[in-house]
Parts: sequence; structure tokens; C-alpha cells
Amino acid sequence: MTEKLSDTARKTMLEPLFATGWEMVEGRDALKKSFNFKHFNAAFGWMTRVAMFAEKWDHHPEWFNVYNRVDVVLTTHDVGGLSTLDAKLARKMDGLAGLTGNS
Amino acid sequence: MTEKLSDTARKTMLEPLFATGWEMVEGRDALKKSFNFKHFNAAFGWMTRVAMFAEKWDHHPEWFNVYNRVDVVLTTHDVGGLSTLDAKLARKMDGLAGLTGNS
Repeated sequence: MTEKLSDTARKTMLEPLFATGWEMVEGRDALKKSFNFKHFNAAFGWMTRVAMFAEKWDHHPEWFNVYNRVDVVLTTHDVGGLSTLDAKLARKMDGLAGLTGNS
Repeated sequence: MTEKLSDTARKTMLEPLFATGWEMVEGRDALKKSFNFKHFNAAFGWMTRVAMFAEKWDHHPEWFNVYNRVDVVLTTHDVGGLSTLDAKLARKMDGLAGLTGNS
């Protein structure tokens, strides 16, 4: 079962994400990041790839898109805060955006 | 060239949209509506169909998705307000969501 990140897990899983531009949302136990692409085609193409992983893992983002920009917020509603699923999806999003090569 | 809606066009084009649940955004010359689907698959499937029309017409929405919900805002940045493109995309969104049968 998915559980809220422990203090130890939090350090090891979140630090690498902060290094790629993820930040904590003020007032929520959630991660946020803005992704910028060349144009809408690239932004929505990326969202489509992410969507398939989100569906496969049954873990979905909150995201806002306008043209080439996608603002993402990740949290695990079931546990009321961050879980390993958020770190996993965040890494996948970076990877699919070509930032870390793990797509 | 795309132009801001005239008062006459505004009445004829927007009234039918208000009837299907579109509303004016407070403080902006923009339309908004929340679409609710059965689940993420249906929501993102709808977004994908909309995205292809948006790209074809070179007119893109501002939209926020979380799981089965999509909150849409439409406006035409180039003219600083609503144009016929917004009414066209709003009608298409309704149609693709199965509300008016014009998909």
C-alpha cells in the first residue's frame, strides 16, 4: 500500500528532484514544477506520454497547460501528502522531458 | 484576420454557449467551463481530441486537469479578448464531450 514518505525517504527521494527544479508547494505537502517546451505540439505530446504512465500507475498529476507551458503539482490524495509514487512520476516527467535521460 | 467579437456577434455566438454551461471569467474577456468525465482515461482522451483541433486551428486553450475534471478558459491573446475562434473551440469542446452532438 502507498504510504506517506518518511523523513528518511523524503531526504533521499526529494533532494535529487529539487536539483532538477522541483519545489515544495507552499502550504501543501506537494511538489511543483513548470515545464516549458518549444510549442503546443511538444507540450501536449509530453503530456500524452506522461498520461499513459499516470494511468498505468494509477497516479495522476494536477496540471495546467497553456500553449508551450505545463505547470505540474504532484501529491498523493489518498495519503494526504507525498508518497513514493510522486517521486516516481516526477522522475518520469523529467525523463520524458529529456532532462535526465531516463525516459 | 481574427478580430475581437463585436457586440452583435457576442450576443449571437455567446448566448448558445451560456446555455450549455459556459460562463464569463470575472475580470477577463474570456469564457470558462468545467468538464467532468467518468475517469482520467475519458478526460485525457477528450483533451487529446480537443488538442488536435486546437493545433489545426492554431488556437489553444488554457486548461487545468486533475483526474476526471478539466477546467477550461478560452480567450484570444492576440486580440486581448474573445474572438470567433473561442466560440468555435467552445462548441467543439461541447461536441466532443457529447453534449451537443456536433463532434
